[in-house]
Amino acid sequence: MEKKELIVRENILGSNKKVAQEIRAKLAGRGVLCVNLMSAPGAGKTSLLEKMAEKLAPAHAMAVIEGDVETERDAERIRAKGIPAWQIVTGGECHLEARMIGKLFGGLPEKLDFLFIENIGNLICPASFDLGEHLRCVLVSSPEGDDKVKKYPEAFLTSDCLLITKSDLIPYLIFDPERVKKEALELNPKLRIFILSSFKDQGLDDFVAFLVERRKELATGHA
Amino acid sequence: MEKKELIVRENILGSNKKVAQEIRAKLAGRGVLCVNLMSAPGAGKTSLLEKMAEKLAPAHAMAVIEGDVETERDAERIRAKGIPAWQIVTGGECHLEARMIGKLFGGLPEKLDFLFIENIGNLICPASFDLGEHLRCVLVSSPEGDDKVKKYPEAFLTSDCLLITKSDLIPYLIFDPERVKKEALELNPKLRIFILSSFKDQGLDDFVAFLVERRKELATGHA
Repeated sequence: MEKKELIVRENILGSNKKVAQEIRAKLAGRGVLCVNLMSAPGAGKTSLLEKMAEKLAPAHAMAVIEGDVETERDAERIRAKGIPAWQIVTGGECHLEARMIGKLFGGLPEKLDFLFIENIGNLICPASFDLGEHLRCVLVSSPEGDDKVKKYPEAFLTSDCLLITKSDLIPYLIFDPERVKKEALELNPKLRIFILSSFKDQGLDDFVAFLVERRKELATGHA
Repeated sequence: MEKKELIVRENILGSNKKVAQEIRAKLAGRGVLCVNLMSAPGAGKTSLLEKMAEKLAPAHAMAVIEGDVETERDAERIRAKGIPAWQIVTGGECHLEARMIGKLFGGLPEKLDFLFIENIGNLICPASFDLGEHLRCVLVSSPEGDDKVKKYPEAFLTSDCLLITKSDLIPYLIFDPERVKKEALELNPKLRIFILSSFKDQGLDDFVAFLVERRKELATGHA
């Protein structure tokens, strides 16, 4: 990277961090757990959110902020499940930034327990941008292969959870979930790992229970 | 994007284009067809190159430049097939640039027919950077879903070929290849589309024949 580019980048990351910290504190004060979902395109972020609408939303108020380069498609899928959703269309930008979340802040529902942010489908750039989340989850879908962790380390280094998705496809693939787990924990021993299939409803109840628990910790100041 | 950032970006893209044009002309002069493979992580770029080693290399000299954020894993896979391969490790950068390719230029084999560049696994940022290729191919794997084209338009707008990969998984997915084709051709009517499975050897011979044909056109100045 060139020097001028590096300086511009440092400034952007610094001011992003400040906005993110304000968002995180405000949401915590209102008892809202904010979850940032990051992954490559097509790893199953929107499908997971559709399942959260079925499994988490009946007992807890949830809302979703969708990020995409183009189209309102993902927000429409979430709204079809009866969940309030906002679409950020970046028009070319490869990641979300905290100021984009901040702009939507005023429109969030009064009663809210969980705010999910679905980041742009990109396993690299979004990892550098704190969005004010309390919990960062990186998804790797089984068809992407079991060699991804060390090739794209920052997303795994900065996350709290690893979600191995599309587990229903594992029988048709050369994919070893143990390799993924091992490499991920070598990079980041604090990662909580879940193996999920939104299509076949595998592992989702455990993930929901974990989210509910983390929100309780937020309320008591231990998150 | 901020103004200062925009100016820096414009400068980078401008100087990248110049270097790319030099690379393209030099390779054409030597009769080398250069192919830039772009996709999300885990769409099957390296597996496709392994199959090219089996199907294209016996009759044609090929070499591979691998791009990754971290690790030499992909170049090792290609070398294991007896194909010369260079790994560019960007250490965080989300795309390849022409100057990175230019640096490896002197080391390329004397006799060479096809130079493949496997870009960083990222469906967004690499699309803005001409690497001096004669043919740009974007891969979408069937498990990524059939809604990706319009969500990530630049990669499809700037490509010559669309490769729908992992076709062997389609029976286990909700995935309509016709939707992908239709949306891709709406964006870019010139796209040549191939449906491939490296795992089950589907469609690969057609793609190899197409590459050989394109190289002939290059030699006669019609590429």
